[in-house]
Amino acid sequence: MKKYVIGVDVGGTNIKLGLVHSQGHIIARSYFSTIPFSSSKTELIAALAQEIKAIIISHHLKNRDIAGVGVGLPGLVDDHQGIVRFLPNIPGWRNVHLKAILEKKLNLPVFIDNDVKLITLAEWKFGAGRGVKNLICLTLGTGVGSGLILDNHLYCGSTNAAGELGHMPLNEQGPACNCGGFGCLETYVGNKRLFALASRMMNQRGMTTQKMFALANQGHKKALQYWHQAATHIGNGLVGIVNLLNPELIIIGGGVSHNEKFLFPRIREVIKQRAMDVQASIVKIKRAEFGDDAGIIGTQVLVNAKIL
Amino acid sequence: MKKYVIGVDVGGTNIKLGLVHSQGHIIARSYFSTIPFSSSKTELIAALAQEIKAIIISHHLKNRDIAGVGVGLPGLVDDHQGIVRFLPNIPGWRNVHLKAILEKKLNLPVFIDNDVKLITLAEWKFGAGRGVKNLICLTLGTGVGSGLILDNHLYCGSTNAAGELGHMPLNEQGPACNCGGFGCLETYVGNKRLFALASRMMNQRGMTTQKMFALANQGHKKALQYWHQAATHIGNGLVGIVNLLNPELIIIGGGVSHNEKFLFPRIREVIKQRAMDVQASIVKIKRAEFGDDAGIIGTQVLVNAKIL
Repeated sequence: MKKYVIGVDVGGTNIKLGLVHSQGHIIARSYFSTIPFSSSKTELIAALAQEIKAIIISHHLKNRDIAGVGVGLPGLVDDHQGIVRFLPNIPGWRNVHLKAILEKKLNLPVFIDNDVKLITLAEWKFGAGRGVKNLICLTLGTGVGSGLILDNHLYCGSTNAAGELGHMPLNEQGPACNCGGFGCLETYVGNKRLFALASRMMNQRGMTTQKMFALANQGHKKALQYWHQAATHIGNGLVGIVNLLNPELIIIGGGVSHNEKFLFPRIREVIKQRAMDVQASIVKIKRAEFGDDAGIIGTQVLVNAKIL
Repeated sequence: MKKYVIGVDVGGTNIKLGLVHSQGHIIARSYFSTIPFSSSKTELIAALAQEIKAIIISHHLKNRDIAGVGVGLPGLVDDHQGIVRFLPNIPGWRNVHLKAILEKKLNLPVFIDNDVKLITLAEWKFGAGRGVKNLICLTLGTGVGSGLILDNHLYCGSTNAAGELGHMPLNEQGPACNCGGFGCLETYVGNKRLFALASRMMNQRGMTTQKMFALANQGHKKALQYWHQAATHIGNGLVGIVNLLNPELIIIGGGVSHNEKFLFPRIREVIKQRAMDVQASIVKIKRAEFGDDAGIIGTQVLVNAKIL
């Protein structure tokens, strides 16, 4: 096995890069803003290739030391063909042959996939889910997503679109969701909704989950209620998947997962109360280990699985 | 591969047996009532062993012609250890070492599993799901269950309890379910609930789904509404799993699935309206092919998978 993978995490405003060791450590990092390139994908991809070459050179490496480049993207990716289908929060990316373009520029194998899948691979191979056969990795943010490790491999579904736990409906008559559905988990615990709810509950503009966390830490009653309510929705959203997939572990990551003490006990309680006994008795809830690094670490697993 | 498997389908009032050819055809059948044995598991198991021996002898077979015996049970089964853990509708069956007991009596390999899993295996290998990589097999009856074929194999979960799609909640504040949860799909479309709803909607005691089907066939407005409502709940229950597991196919079996024309068009419509575009565009809905035979046919797949 070659020693290094170069991991790329494409976000709405920044692209982060990391030189990842075969044991999953990030040895070096860099990042650049995507904003100067917002009108040209071609220039953005050229800048990304340049940054990758710079990492290789600055660490006195040659292409032969690099197993490959892995790129995580926040949206729908055709991993087999290496095509970015659609990125909901980055306009203009539709059917971009990113793998082929980068391979030509770099003369290295390039693999691309959805970022939540890479986070899941990182937590499973190196993080909170090491050695676990069946797990769900839930990511809470603007979007709510998940990756599924089932029978010791990443389950991708028929068109690489599996894992949309954020679009598990909680109520048949629930609020309309961007996805076209109704009452999806994301409409209750996506960041936008949590921010709006915080402002409404506190009767004050500009409230954030961070502020609600600080208030809860001070014992503020409404803030505690707020987190209880959010955790109840998350727990209710997990009951169905616990009953259906009978996992050993649910890993929770993303912004609000830092508020572990106000979320996790209630999530566990809801699952215990509402999921079936056999499934509820075996499933554990853990916080993700790698935070913002998970996407980059996951490229290590992706690349090494693909080049085998 | 040996030519025959003996399949056993244990129900609440009858045990059905079949001699199953390696291509999935049932060559011979028999059944007996469990009612005379309701007070003694030991006698029931002895009677079952006797019936299996009778099938072998009456077809002029020897034990060496039989690959094994497969038993499907309506409840929680530890397939690895061969222990029946709990059958919700057959009192007294708790932690029965059925595999070991039958193997001793028969001198044949015996394998046991949950009946919905066997139905799923039958439909996948020989029926509506032949050649499909990812499918859900939903069974509608007194209980609502499912089996999951994911990446070309039966997914069983961490404690063989996966597939409880009947206990996917549709509403956070929905009706209490026997499982301990609230608003489960089964509380909307399980047979008991459908019968009660039929009587209430028609303002007449003793209404059944069969009667409602007959009325719908005559164009009765309330009966058509009734099926529309049931199909809407089923569709809503499937939206989450379509988004989450991105299957190519959902097979629907069990009693009310015979009412295909009043259910399936609306189920497809709900999925198209409410599931995510990528997932909804690929998934097909089909009726199960084997009806009541599926459990017995599935033992063929079970036994041959285990003795490999």
